[in-house]
Amino acid sequence: MNEITKDLMKLVTDLDELPKGAYNIREDSKSVARQSSENIEIVSKTDKSGIDIIVKPNTASEHVYIPALVTCGGITDLVYNDFYIGENADVTVIAGCGVSTGDSCDGSQHHGIHRFFLARNSHVRYVEKHIGVGEGTGKRVIDPETVVEQEEGSFMEMETTQIKGVDSTVRVTKATLKENAKLIIKEKLITHGQQIAITNFEVDMDGENSSVNLISRSVARDYSKQTFISKITGNTRCMGHSECDAIIMDHGVVSAVPKITANSVDATLIHEAAIGKIAGDQMTKLMTLGLNEKEAEEKIIEGFLS
Amino acid sequence: MNEITKDLMKLVTDLDELPKGAYNIREDSKSVARQSSENIEIVSKTDKSGIDIIVKPNTASEHVYIPALVTCGGITDLVYNDFYIGENADVTVIAGCGVSTGDSCDGSQHHGIHRFFLARNSHVRYVEKHIGVGEGTGKRVIDPETVVEQEEGSFMEMETTQIKGVDSTVRVTKATLKENAKLIIKEKLITHGQQIAITNFEVDMDGENSSVNLISRSVARDYSKQTFISKITGNTRCMGHSECDAIIMDHGVVSAVPKITANSVDATLIHEAAIGKIAGDQMTKLMTLGLNEKEAEEKIIEGFLS
Repeated sequence: MNEITKDLMKLVTDLDELPKGAYNIREDSKSVARQSSENIEIVSKTDKSGIDIIVKPNTASEHVYIPALVTCGGITDLVYNDFYIGENADVTVIAGCGVSTGDSCDGSQHHGIHRFFLARNSHVRYVEKHIGVGEGTGKRVIDPETVVEQEEGSFMEMETTQIKGVDSTVRVTKATLKENAKLIIKEKLITHGQQIAITNFEVDMDGENSSVNLISRSVARDYSKQTFISKITGNTRCMGHSECDAIIMDHGVVSAVPKITANSVDATLIHEAAIGKIAGDQMTKLMTLGLNEKEAEEKIIEGFLS
Repeated sequence: MNEITKDLMKLVTDLDELPKGAYNIREDSKSVARQSSENIEIVSKTDKSGIDIIVKPNTASEHVYIPALVTCGGITDLVYNDFYIGENADVTVIAGCGVSTGDSCDGSQHHGIHRFFLARNSHVRYVEKHIGVGEGTGKRVIDPETVVEQEEGSFMEMETTQIKGVDSTVRVTKATLKENAKLIIKEKLITHGQQIAITNFEVDMDGENSSVNLISRSVARDYSKQTFISKITGNTRCMGHSECDAIIMDHGVVSAVPKITANSVDATLIHEAAIGKIAGDQMTKLMTLGLNEKEAEEKIIEGFLS
C-alpha cells in the first residue's frame, strides 16, 4: 500500500495495518488485499464488480473490514457487495469509503451498493465512515445504497458518519423487517462549503413486534445543503421512531421530510424533527468558562454529534 | 328558512336564528340572507359566485357569520369569499359548511375558496365547522381552500373541525407571514366508514420574528384514511412548530408527511408526529371506574380532541 492508501485506510477504519481476521481492501475499483477467516468467507462476484461476504451460522463476535479507497481524481468506482449473515451469527462490519482527489481538477466517485440478508436471530453492527481528501477542484462524490432484509428476530445496527470532504452524497437505505426484527440507524453528518447531502430512509415493518429507530444528527455549515427524507411504514403491530436534529450555521439550508404511515391499528409511529442554530445561552456559558467563540462552537457540535 | 337549512345552520354555527351584526347565509349556491354592519360590509362579487367581506380598520371584537349550506343531493357549489381586514381590526369569522344529501343517491359538493388579507396588527379568529348529514348513498364532499396573507404584526387563529358525515375532504391552507405576524392553526378531525381526508398546509415565514404553530388532532375509525401534509419554510429569523397526533382505530390508516425547511440560520423549526391506537392502560383505568368499553373510548377521544 502506498502512503495515500494507508492514510485513507486509517481515516476510514482507524487501522494502521492490515487487520487480523477477514478483510477486503478495495483500491481504485480493484480488490488489492483480501483474507477470509474460518467463519467469514469473502469471494469475488463473477457477474459484476464486488464481493459476497458469507458469515457462517453461530459465528460469535467477529469483525470484517471492507474499506473502499479511491486514491486519485478521474475515477468512477461502482461496487456491489452482498452480505449473507447466517442464523445466530454476530458480526461487526467496518465499511466506509475514502476518496482522495489530491490536487486534481478531475473529480472521483464511489457508488457502493450493499445488500444485507440477515437470517433468523443474527446480529450485524455496521460501521461506515465516509471521508473526502484533496486540495484540487475535483469533486468527491460518494453515493451509498444499502438494502437490508431482516428475518425473524434479527438485529441490525448501522452507524454512519460523514464528517468532511465529500462534495455530494445521496444516501439511500431501504429495509424490510420480519417478526421481532429490530433496526437502529444512527447517522452523523457535517457538511460545509457548497456541499450537498441527501439522506433517504425507507423502512417497512411487516413482521409483528418489529421495530425501527432512526436517529439523524447533522450540522450544515457555510453554504451547504442537506435534505433528510424518511419513510416509515407500519403494516402490523410494530414500533417506529424517527428523529432528525439539525444545527444550521452560516448560510446552511436544511430540509426534513419524514413520512410515517400506519396501515395497522397496532402500529405505533413517532417522528420528531428540529432544525435551528446553536442556542445563544449555550455559547455564553462556554465562553464564560474561558473558551473563545470558535472553541465553544466546536465543543457544542462535538456534544451534539456524540 | 326551511327545517333542513335551520338544522344545518345550528350544526355549523350553533345559531338558532339569524344573528345580530354582519352575516351572509349561503344555501344551495345562492345568498339567501345577508346583513352588513357599521364596520363589516358584505358585498357580492360581480365576476364570480361569492362575497367580499370588508372589515374597517380599528373594528373592535365583532363577529361575522358566513355559513354555507347544501340542503340536497346533486349540488356542486363553488364559492369565492375574500376577507379584507383593516389595520388594528379584531374580528371573529364563523364559517363552515353543512352538506345534507337526505336519502338521495346523488352526491353533493361544496368547494369554498377563502382568501384573507390581514392588514397591519389586525387579528382574525376563524372558526370553521364541516359536517355532513344524510342516510342516502350520495357522497358528501367538502374541499376548502384557504389562502392567508398576513401583514406586519397581524395574528390569525384558525380552528377547524370536521366531526362526521363528510365522505371526502381535501383541505388546503396556504399562508405567508410578514414581520411579527403570527399564525395558529388547530385542526380537529374524525373520519369513519370509508371516508377520506387529506390536509395540506403550506406556510412561508418571510418576515422577521414571524411564527406559526400547527396543531392537528385526528381520529381515524373503521376503514377511513387520512393524510396530513405540512410544509413549513423559514426564510428569516422565525419560529415554526407543527404537531400531528393521530389515533387509529379498527382498520383506519393514517399518514403524516411534514416538511420543514430552514433557509436561514435564524429559523427555528420543530415538527412532531405521533400515530397510534388508544393506550390499553388508559382504557383499563376508565373501565375500572365503571365505564364500558365504548364509553371509555369516547371519553379518551373527547379528551384527545379537546
